[in-house]
Amino acid sequence: MVPMATVTIGVDLGGTKIQTVALVDGEVVGQARHATPQTDAQAVMDEIVAAAREALGAAGTRGGDVRAIGIGTPGTVDPATGNVANSSNVAGFLHEVPLGSTISAAFNGVPVIVDNDVRVAIMGEFRRGAGRPYRDLLGVFVGTGVGGGLIMGGTLYRGRGGAGEIGHTVVKPGGRRCVCGMRGCLEAYAGRQSIEQVARRRAAAGTHTMLFKIMEAKGRDRVTSSVVADALERGDELTHRLISEAVDALGLAIANAQNLLDLEAIIVGGGLGDRLGEPFVRQVERAMFPHLHLPERPPVMLGTELGDLSGGVGAAVVAGG
Amino acid sequence: MVPMATVTIGVDLGGTKIQTVALVDGEVVGQARHATPQTDAQAVMDEIVAAAREALGAAGTRGGDVRAIGIGTPGTVDPATGNVANSSNVAGFLHEVPLGSTISAAFNGVPVIVDNDVRVAIMGEFRRGAGRPYRDLLGVFVGTGVGGGLIMGGTLYRGRGGAGEIGHTVVKPGGRRCVCGMRGCLEAYAGRQSIEQVARRRAAAGTHTMLFKIMEAKGRDRVTSSVVADALERGDELTHRLISEAVDALGLAIANAQNLLDLEAIIVGGGLGDRLGEPFVRQVERAMFPHLHLPERPPVMLGTELGDLSGGVGAAVVAGG
Repeated sequence: MVPMATVTIGVDLGGTKIQTVALVDGEVVGQARHATPQTDAQAVMDEIVAAAREALGAAGTRGGDVRAIGIGTPGTVDPATGNVANSSNVAGFLHEVPLGSTISAAFNGVPVIVDNDVRVAIMGEFRRGAGRPYRDLLGVFVGTGVGGGLIMGGTLYRGRGGAGEIGHTVVKPGGRRCVCGMRGCLEAYAGRQSIEQVARRRAAAGTHTMLFKIMEAKGRDRVTSSVVADALERGDELTHRLISEAVDALGLAIANAQNLLDLEAIIVGGGLGDRLGEPFVRQVERAMFPHLHLPERPPVMLGTELGDLSGGVGAAVVAGG
Repeated sequence: MVPMATVTIGVDLGGTKIQTVALVDGEVVGQARHATPQTDAQAVMDEIVAAAREALGAAGTRGGDVRAIGIGTPGTVDPATGNVANSSNVAGFLHEVPLGSTISAAFNGVPVIVDNDVRVAIMGEFRRGAGRPYRDLLGVFVGTGVGGGLIMGGTLYRGRGGAGEIGHTVVKPGGRRCVCGMRGCLEAYAGRQSIEQVARRRAAAGTHTMLFKIMEAKGRDRVTSSVVADALERGDELTHRLISEAVDALGLAIANAQNLLDLEAIIVGGGLGDRLGEPFVRQVERAMFPHLHLPERPPVMLGTELGDLSGGVGAAVVAGG
């Protein structure tokens, strides 16, 4: 009798999608992607269970018994209990939700580790992706907002629990208002949501742009990363200007982090970062250079290797997979 | 027969002074301060030996056998050999100097550890000064330039050897030219040398200031920290304006470091920082607040405890004292 493999499930919980992976010996043997229910916390947790089961099913004979589940989530995580709160992006997760214990119960009490989504994503790239060769690195995830995660000396650096917020380092004192309430944050220039807001204001004020026509033609109600990418390809001037400002802001914030930390590598990912890909990473690198204190010894600049699986794989890694 | 104590000597080598301490059981039992010779490397090393012997002598019967010597120095340090180079502040230290082996030979071959002056100073405050209660902290030393040192997870963080350069994080893109060649660095606003340069330019352009009269009255040929302090006390408007810009720049750079690292404590020291003291630390704290991502959980802001002994004590600590 061939013994069954032991599987670690990784869950990347986002405001619009739930991405799950099944990992055996560090390799993805199955995955699934479900839309995140927009109703309440119970529906979201039911969907996580369904997506986890689907990833396990997709593994087929390469799968086996689930030994642990890791979950990356937005919001505030209590690592001891696996409870989550303060996430305005996930339906029902503004108040405290017993995420860890609920998912554990659905899988016969297997251990469930819950952690911050961005930290989990940088762990994925560090252990199974582009960050493997390095011990000191920064992940910058450019999506709806801009998140960051730090690996220092080969381990995830948490500070007092809130480390990595490069999105809320100030690149322009007194500059654009950020959703966090401060002015001039990196996120106010490079986050997809902020870019959309500024584009809407400029369009309303008479600036010509194809951005919203492209959005409608794609049947979307918000300016997604692929809408931005299409507008860039079609030469939309406003979009080019806004992305150029995003690149400059990223270059400055990353250079400042580099000057302080002298890291080996910077990984640029996230929904928008992954979608714009290698040319975007190279633009950010060029924007970083003039602000580097040691330009003769720059950090290696990389895109993600795992793409939108960074979070799922990282969650499994955090759970020991 | 009472056994002799074993002493660790710490040396803080600067462009104008050599500060030495003798440490027994972590306590300063003797110290000495000599002017740094302005001639050549051999004269500087002879003076280090003399100052180390004087500290040992000052310890009297509380001293004993030297078991190790630590030296904090500006410039590039090769930790393996104890050689130093690229220091434009110390006479003869622009080219490579066998600092470690020379001092060791003068003390019967005791082990000599040579390290960067700023990193050594933060180690002093971390292990024997204001930083004792913390594991994650940043030291910001505001002197001729602005240096920084990071303790993370209870150990000195070096990156690839160049970590901690908060003085060369950019606080104003396209702003004041820094001695390093970049624009808008923290050091260009908060370093004593840069403040002096800007004051000279403004004075030459007709701005009224007492700064240089105070300098001459004190018999100095440069605007020292005590000249700045006197000008502030006497209400000199230009000095107040320049220090206010320095405080704003420090507040922003420290907030950005905090947002990225979520540290427990920030220590503000250095020649100018120590001289302006507690009121200056509180001003920097106020300037930091508006840029904090987690203002409800700010870092503790502290002055140094060891003052101008931070470097000497830290050098001894680095050598195991």
